[in-house]
Amino acid sequence: MKVSELGEFGLIDLLAGMVEKAGSKEASRQLILGIGDDAAAWHGDASIQLATTDSLVQDVHFRLDVTSWEELGWRAMAANLSDIAAMGGLPRYALVSLSLPGSTDVEDVASLYKGMIALANQSGVIITGGDLSGAPLLVINITVLGSTGSKDSKMLTRSAARPGDKIAVTGYLGASAAGLEVLRDNLNLESGAAENLKSAFLKPTPRVAEGRLLVEKGVRAAIDISDGLIADLRHICERSKVGARLETGSVPVHPAVMANFGERALDMALSGGEDYELLFTAADEVIDSVKEAASCPITVVGEITADNTGKVIVVDKKGNPVEPPAAGWEHFS
Amino acid sequence: MKVSELGEFGLIDLLAGMVEKAGSKEASRQLILGIGDDAAAWHGDASIQLATTDSLVQDVHFRLDVTSWEELGWRAMAANLSDIAAMGGLPRYALVSLSLPGSTDVEDVASLYKGMIALANQSGVIITGGDLSGAPLLVINITVLGSTGSKDSKMLTRSAARPGDKIAVTGYLGASAAGLEVLRDNLNLESGAAENLKSAFLKPTPRVAEGRLLVEKGVRAAIDISDGLIADLRHICERSKVGARLETGSVPVHPAVMANFGERALDMALSGGEDYELLFTAADEVIDSVKEAASCPITVVGEITADNTGKVIVVDKKGNPVEPPAAGWEHFS
Repeated sequence: MKVSELGEFGLIDLLAGMVEKAGSKEASRQLILGIGDDAAAWHGDASIQLATTDSLVQDVHFRLDVTSWEELGWRAMAANLSDIAAMGGLPRYALVSLSLPGSTDVEDVASLYKGMIALANQSGVIITGGDLSGAPLLVINITVLGSTGSKDSKMLTRSAARPGDKIAVTGYLGASAAGLEVLRDNLNLESGAAENLKSAFLKPTPRVAEGRLLVEKGVRAAIDISDGLIADLRHICERSKVGARLETGSVPVHPAVMANFGERALDMALSGGEDYELLFTAADEVIDSVKEAASCPITVVGEITADNTGKVIVVDKKGNPVEPPAAGWEHFS
Repeated sequence: MKVSELGEFGLIDLLAGMVEKAGSKEASRQLILGIGDDAAAWHGDASIQLATTDSLVQDVHFRLDVTSWEELGWRAMAANLSDIAAMGGLPRYALVSLSLPGSTDVEDVASLYKGMIALANQSGVIITGGDLSGAPLLVINITVLGSTGSKDSKMLTRSAARPGDKIAVTGYLGASAAGLEVLRDNLNLESGAAENLKSAFLKPTPRVAEGRLLVEKGVRAAIDISDGLIADLRHICERSKVGARLETGSVPVHPAVMANFGERALDMALSGGEDYELLFTAADEVIDSVKEAASCPITVVGEITADNTGKVIVVDKKGNPVEPPAAGWEHFS
C-alpha cells in the first residue's frame, strides 16, 4: 500500500502503534504524553538538559540503493544519539519529522521506523512525537532530547580543550567510509571483512556509555567523529582557541580497512567521517583512568598546542609535517 | 553571495551571530550552550516539559512567489509556537534545521532567520541550535521546547473534552485562507482589507498568552486551528472519544472575510486552516471566566456530545444538519 492510500492520519496511527509496542523504557516513567497531541510532554528535572537536531536528505546524505529503509532509520537515529554522547549525556526522547512522497510504500516507512526504534530501544530512548508531510523526496529530521543527569555543569563541550591536553579517540576509524565503498562498488573482501565494514557504515553504535564514562573520569572536551577526524579536531580547536598536533602513526585505523585499502586506509581514518567514535582531549592521567575503565580501545593520537588560531598540524611517524587529505564533509561545497 | 560560496560553517557563524545579537531573553538565564556545539544545553527544572516539531517543505507548505523569506521564517516559527500555545505552555528554546540548495542567496537565508528571530524574540524564545545541509529544495524544520511552568499536570490536551462541554474559539477565523487567496490572485479589496488578510496569512501571532490563560481558568482540552476548525475539532473528538455539534451560525468569521468573500466566507472559516487560533472546550462557567479575562474575542461555537465515535455534526442557524465543506488539509491525499 502507498502512503497516499493510507493517508497522513492512518500512517500516524500505524507508526504510533509501533512506538507504543516498543514501550517500557526508563524514560517512560517520566513521560506524560507521547505521539498524538500538539506537543509531547514529560516531567522535567533540575539536571542539565540537552537537545540536538539533524536532517538527512535523500541523495545528499543517503542513497536508497545502498541503504535499506531499516538501516537508514538506524543511521538517522545514531547520528543524533551520537551528538548527545558527545556531550556526555543520556538520550531520552526523540521527535521524528518525516517528509516523503505519497507514492512511498507504507511498508518502507514502517521499516524506517523499525530501524529507528531498534536503536532507540537499545539506548533507552522513546519516540514521543513528530510530524509527517508530503515532499518530492525523503527528508528525515530527528531531534533528540537528553540530559546530563546532574545539576552541576559537568559535561563534554567542544570549547574545553587546553594546551598540553592529549588528544584521544574511542574505537577504530575509517570503517564507515570503507563500508560505504564496499556497498557502492559491491567489493568482495576476505574473511568477513566486507560484512564488518558494511555494518560499520549501516549500523553504527553511538558511544553513549563511553561519553558518560568520559565525564565521570573528568574529561571536559569532546566531539563525535561525524565529519572526519581532522575536520572534527579542527572544530574542537576553533571553539577552544587552541591548536593541535595529530600524529598519523598513532591513528587507530580499523584493521579491516588497513588490510584491504592499502595506502588509502589512513586517509579514510583521517577524513572519512561518520565513524561516530568520540574524539576527546584531557590530561595524561585522566586519559589513563579512562583507558582502565573503558570497554573499547582508547588511543592517544596527538596533543593540544597553544596555537590560538585553531590550526591542526598533521605529522607522520617521523614527526615531519604532512599535507592532510581533503577536508571532511562540508555542505554546499 | 551564494550559500555555496560562503560555505556551511561560514553560514552557521553568520546565523549564530544574528541569534546572539537578538539575545537577552528570560530563557537566556538558564541557557548554558547555544549554537556551536554538538547539542544545546540549559538548566532544567521540575515543571512539565513540552516539545513539538514541524517541517515546512517548499511548494508543499509554501511558495516563495507569494511569501518573502522573512515572512516564511515568521510563519514557520509561528506554527511551532502555536503547538506549545495549544498545550497551555511557555515556549523557551528552538532548534532550526535548514536543508537548502547551495545556489540560495545568503541574504535570503539571513532574511528567513530575521523573521524567525523577530517572532522568537517577541515570544521569549531563543534559537539554541540546529543543522544546515544541502538539498535540492528548501525544507525548514523547527523544534520548539517549552514548559508548563508548573509541576502538576495542568495543561491543555486533545483528549480532555467531556460531553456537555461548550466548544469555543479565540479570535476570528478564515482570515488566513482568505489572505492566501488575496496573495495568490493579487486581489484588490476595499479599505485595507487586503493588507489585513495578507498579514493574517503571512504573520500569524500564536496565542501563547491565551493558552496560558485557558489553563489558569481551568480549561483542559484544546488544540490550535492549523488544519481547519472542523478538522481540528475532529482531532479533539477522536482523542477524547466524544462527538461534537458545531453551529455554523455562531462561527466568528473574520469581518474582512465576511465582507469580501460572500458565501465562501463560512467555508474559509470552517476549513481554511492556518488561523492559529485556539479551539477549546470547557464547562459554561469556565468559558465565562475566560471571556472576562481574555483580551481577544472568545466565541462559543457548539458543544461536545456523548457520541464516542468522534463524529462532528455541523448544523446551520436553524439547527438543521448541513454537509460540512471539504475536510482540512491532509498530506498525501
